[in-house]
Amino acid sequence: MAGNTFGTLFKLTTFGESHGAAIGGVLDGCPSGIEIDLDAIQIELDRRKPGQSAIVTQRKEPDTVEFLSGIFEGKTTGTPIGFAIRNTNQKSHDYSHIKDSYRPSHADYTYDQKYGFRDYRGGGRSSARETASRVVAGAIAKQFLSAIKINAYVSQVGDLTLEKEYQALDLTLTESNPVRCPDPETAAKMESYIKEVRKEGDTIGGIISCVVQNVPIGLGEPVFDKLHAELGKAMLSINAVKGFEYGSGFKGVAMKGSAHNDQFKSDGSTKTNHSGGIQGGISNGMDIYFNVAFKPVATVIQGYETIDKEGNMVQTKGKGRHDPCVVPRAVPIVEAMTALVLADYALLNRTIKV
Amino acid sequence: MAGNTFGTLFKLTTFGESHGAAIGGVLDGCPSGIEIDLDAIQIELDRRKPGQSAIVTQRKEPDTVEFLSGIFEGKTTGTPIGFAIRNTNQKSHDYSHIKDSYRPSHADYTYDQKYGFRDYRGGGRSSARETASRVVAGAIAKQFLSAIKINAYVSQVGDLTLEKEYQALDLTLTESNPVRCPDPETAAKMESYIKEVRKEGDTIGGIISCVVQNVPIGLGEPVFDKLHAELGKAMLSINAVKGFEYGSGFKGVAMKGSAHNDQFKSDGSTKTNHSGGIQGGISNGMDIYFNVAFKPVATVIQGYETIDKEGNMVQTKGKGRHDPCVVPRAVPIVEAMTALVLADYALLNRTIKV
Amino acid sequence: MAGNTFGTLFKLTTFGESHGAAIGGVLDGCPSGIEIDLDAIQIELDRRKPGQSAIVTQRKEPDTVEFLSGIFEGKTTGTPIGFAIRNTNQKSHDYSHIKDSYRPSHADYTYDQKYGFRDYRGGGRSSARETASRVVAGAIAKQFLSAIKINAYVSQVGDLTLEKEYQALDLTLTESNPVRCPDPETAAKMESYIKEVRKEGDTIGGIISCVVQNVPIGLGEPVFDKLHAELGKAMLSINAVKGFEYGSGFKGVAMKGSAHNDQFKSDGSTKTNHSGGIQGGISNGMDIYFNVAFKPVATVIQGYETIDKEGNMVQTKGKGRHDPCVVPRAVPIVEAMTALVLADYALLNRTIKV
Amino acid sequence: MAGNTFGTLFKLTTFGESHGAAIGGVLDGCPSGIEIDLDAIQIELDRRKPGQSAIVTQRKEPDTVEFLSGIFEGKTTGTPIGFAIRNTNQKSHDYSHIKDSYRPSHADYTYDQKYGFRDYRGGGRSSARETASRVVAGAIAKQFLSAIKINAYVSQVGDLTLEKEYQALDLTLTESNPVRCPDPETAAKMESYIKEVRKEGDTIGGIISCVVQNVPIGLGEPVFDKLHAELGKAMLSINAVKGFEYGSGFKGVAMKGSAHNDQFKSDGSTKTNHSGGIQGGISNGMDIYFNVAFKPVATVIQGYETIDKEGNMVQTKGKGRHDPCVVPRAVPIVEAMTALVLADYALLNRTIKV
Repeated sequence: MAGNTFGTLFKLTTFGESHGAAIGGVLDGCPSGIEIDLDAIQIELDRRKPGQSAIVTQRKEPDTVEFLSGIFEGKTTGTPIGFAIRNTNQKSHDYSHIKDSYRPSHADYTYDQKYGFRDYRGGGRSSARETASRVVAGAIAKQFLSAIKINAYVSQVGDLTLEKEYQALDLTLTESNPVRCPDPETAAKMESYIKEVRKEGDTIGGIISCVVQNVPIGLGEPVFDKLHAELGKAMLSINAVKGFEYGSGFKGVAMKGSAHNDQFKSDGSTKTNHSGGIQGGISNGMDIYFNVAFKPVATVIQGYETIDKEGNMVQTKGKGRHDPCVVPRAVPIVEAMTALVLADYALLNRTIKV
Repeated sequence: MAGNTFGTLFKLTTFGESHGAAIGGVLDGCPSGIEIDLDAIQIELDRRKPGQSAIVTQRKEPDTVEFLSGIFEGKTTGTPIGFAIRNTNQKSHDYSHIKDSYRPSHADYTYDQKYGFRDYRGGGRSSARETASRVVAGAIAKQFLSAIKINAYVSQVGDLTLEKEYQALDLTLTESNPVRCPDPETAAKMESYIKEVRKEGDTIGGIISCVVQNVPIGLGEPVFDKLHAELGKAMLSINAVKGFEYGSGFKGVAMKGSAHNDQFKSDGSTKTNHSGGIQGGISNGMDIYFNVAFKPVATVIQGYETIDKEGNMVQTKGKGRHDPCVVPRAVPIVEAMTALVLADYALLNRTIKV
Repeated sequence: MAGNTFGTLFKLTTFGESHGAAIGGVLDGCPSGIEIDLDAIQIELDRRKPGQSAIVTQRKEPDTVEFLSGIFEGKTTGTPIGFAIRNTNQKSHDYSHIKDSYRPSHADYTYDQKYGFRDYRGGGRSSARETASRVVAGAIAKQFLSAIKINAYVSQVGDLTLEKEYQALDLTLTESNPVRCPDPETAAKMESYIKEVRKEGDTIGGIISCVVQNVPIGLGEPVFDKLHAELGKAMLSINAVKGFEYGSGFKGVAMKGSAHNDQFKSDGSTKTNHSGGIQGGISNGMDIYFNVAFKPVATVIQGYETIDKEGNMVQTKGKGRHDPCVVPRAVPIVEAMTALVLADYALLNRTIKV
Repeated sequence: MAGNTFGTLFKLTTFGESHGAAIGGVLDGCPSGIEIDLDAIQIELDRRKPGQSAIVTQRKEPDTVEFLSGIFEGKTTGTPIGFAIRNTNQKSHDYSHIKDSYRPSHADYTYDQKYGFRDYRGGGRSSARETASRVVAGAIAKQFLSAIKINAYVSQVGDLTLEKEYQALDLTLTESNPVRCPDPETAAKMESYIKEVRKEGDTIGGIISCVVQNVPIGLGEPVFDKLHAELGKAMLSINAVKGFEYGSGFKGVAMKGSAHNDQFKSDGSTKTNHSGGIQGGISNGMDIYFNVAFKPVATVIQGYETIDKEGNMVQTKGKGRHDPCVVPRAVPIVEAMTALVLADYALLNRTIKV
């Protein structure tokens, strides 16, 4: 638990600060012989990258990944896949407004206290830029798990809620709008709202829902490494996440057992799926679904008072091009982390043919 | 991730089935020289044990722990602490009603599918009885972390919600009633409700809230092993848990950044604490607080239809003495897992004097 | 690396001091459905136990193992296998001669310095008694790896060397004599020599050789976790071991590459086997063989001068019933650790059918 | 144990094939605030690089490391240190002589069998080129452990043995000759011998000895992760290593306990040091010393018969510029791995101030 590695057998280690030379990672344990579609990886990166639409940050970063090892003649070799994404223009910024003061609800203060020292160029290691490396590895995991379908989408922005369950949605519409909400009508409302918030120089939170279909029975390792426990950790490790629930989630609390229990059909599937596809920490073959809550981005353009390193109160304001709402760009990150979790369990489980 | 070990440096491995010879564990990595109060450990076990009040299962199990190693002359030696809790009467039961059929929303089906084979005596390894081992280790972790205060309590049963924030509660009252809700009035309502549900042969879910005070600044390891990510995993690994949120949680989604940001005071503390004591995955010295959602227990006494191993539909009903609501007994488990997480981070963090 | 766990997927954690209540362990990750022959496990324990012949320590310990979990109806369930071996008579000893002084070349001094505190009853955790737990787990690993043959034997005692290579030996004779040397003539000489050393109140070192046959091709994980690297670590973790070499070993140093290279036959096997069955850290299907060097036991009956906790020189002497030579009893330990290593690699390697 | 990561808290993951785009690694867990001397890192790389003298391979590779993250304003930040070394000219080679056949005593055959597929450009992942990444990380570990002195040197080439113990040597002379033997007279003989072997188109093995001084008392984690066990694994993970011994090593086997035991002085140090600075797996403050045996390099220029993928016998010969003896270039690798092991134990041991 040195902190920068995720997974046991399908194992990603990431490195890089937002304004250093590069970010990147090493994906170790990917089986050999997997054909890698490099374009598909870049498409995932493009879903996450800044500047893709009017409702996300207008920073320009191409986020082009270079693979340094582990792929030969288009296939994985079974050796570690090293990759890097160069940071562009990382030297041109002016950090004087944050160098000596701590932005509220960022990690500036805690990093400085923990490490006695901080890379003050933007978020440094705590920047969500790090998640681009997760998207690369997740895209490879998706190709390894080609039979499994992972679809995340935005289901809430502020208090605008998508009231439909995933079964009532056409998930192929998720990419049809910049919010990544598969219901066009709700998406339009959310988009307007995000624009409004941006104009105020403010930010707003949101929820991403994720559905995983065609999961083989038997993934998950009791008792501490239950499938949903690791999914929860994976989601909570994404910047700005404040909560995770799966299946009936927090709403299930108010149900009685007789109603909550998922009765079996004769083929082993269940009539309802309050369990969210997981029983006793092990997948049961039904759809896995869960929600991930994201707080409003901490960088606001409005002025505020904060402290400097000496504890003096100083007046400052956010600068630059920030995301008014993080969830549209976080959809591919949720999918990537889901894929990494499932790939790891697939390797841990010898009995399953993925 | 073989599944039965939790932690990196302060590391618990548990073993045991509900109806085998014993459950127990090995706690490795506990520093030497910690004075161990054995009575305090037994008190924690007694908070979790069956039969302690009228609203929990009436099974009788003494849950007496025997330490096999690692403690000498009243102090930890730095070597692994092995311990066992004997299962009593484990041979006298009749399992014919579950041997060949799968109970809905239990782990019977998934264990059988995963392992090709199942210990059908009660829940076997998937039984919440395993958590007694966690309580033992957590009680030791609490003694290691003596300066840190960990208080969990029941804040919701069904849709009966404790509306007060933890700051408005007297947490010393948690143990004053069998529900473990620190607000006596709400506790009384919850108790009546649980009794009512039990009479129906049914079960109901609940929420446990947990507050951690006096946490040193700097606990947590970015980026994957953020403090709240590991807390989330720890909670989600407890039987019947469906969701986790910390700080502003799911409600924070609807807040704007300008309101959600926690403004600093000159001493580094913050005026509000939507962050829940954690920024960038690292503790900032403010109180950590979080909620854990538990589903209704799957064992109901009412009759139901299910399948047997051959996929035939069979009629059956729950038997024996079950918990109508799991949260009163789960309070010490939530505290134990919290203590285990914090102890591990304390050891991982060389810069902190616990 | 908290220290008391070995293996990644087939994972043993041990606990226990020589004079505490019990020693034991948890074996996690053993696949389900393996039929367990309990007698075969006890036979391995009996090969290691004290008092089995005239050339080992005359202490009496029955070393009876009790399984607490993970085995049901004669088969492994896939859940952790907890087990304990009670220490008998652990309270009757007199430790006054070692309580306040440090025995030379034991771990008394380093444990005290590291932990600030020491279980002074015998070796405590540093006692070779801990290896009984390894033998239990190794015996289960052997049953899991039933197709693989692991044979260790004594090949040197002091400077009495068994000059024959393993191919020239009948390894079924290893158990025919108390030394566990498969060449009866050499065994007799070794036995006499050990008796002579014991009469002097002294001890002597030795070498154990081990041969592993029918190993599938492909076990081992480059680059840090090469098969021979992990075998080396496993052997070096056994009490009193000072060296490890495999294949041509230290003698290979003086060979030229043209002679040392193992030329292929058309079936992929090799004409010679200086590689010791491992190339690039991965098994190649040829026999694996290696040597393990054991120092003379540190407990001698002769008087000696040492220091106490305050650094005063004190005169003392060894006491009780010690092993004049450790290798006869260490043969099953070498086999057990070999089995644990191979079982772990077998699980790590998805491509191999064990 | 995915294979490409070494260490628990001070943790190196490497990537890269000999003829891919780059090799490199991620060093995670290095404490913050360590001042990094980049020149000192390059000096270590230069000690390992090809073409440095007449007795090593004449390939030209600059081995220039680029740091991508984790160092800011000359100091470590506590975040992962990513780095890469570009492979130069990696596309210009002709691999037709090895593409379809297996070189004896290389990893060609085992990689192909294990992964079903092989990067046939040179050694690929099994090439010793990977060790350059270890040297980078080891150089950082050395700077972290600045008080500890680690000196490796060549003590044997073929059967030319340096007869002096390390105490009788001036270890500052190690770098004074291309063999890296601190005894100039012996070095000259070794150098001539290596040249002779190279003329024959052959190769020869050797031994590297290593001495570690100023080690704090208390490093090492019983029972499986004994300090010498991890050192042994670290050394055995280096390409071409066949054996490891520490302290009295294989020679200690023939000693009696009364002579082998290291008697204490009143300050806790010992009169002799057969223990090699480690008792019970924990450092005791005395010098740690050990030997590492390297086989003759498998690439010989002489013609030989081998098999192709279909099992046909084919006639071939080694090509290009190989090392006639690997030990001169392996000295910095032995030191690097030693530093990595010690850095990890230093972090694991909270009681020690490094």
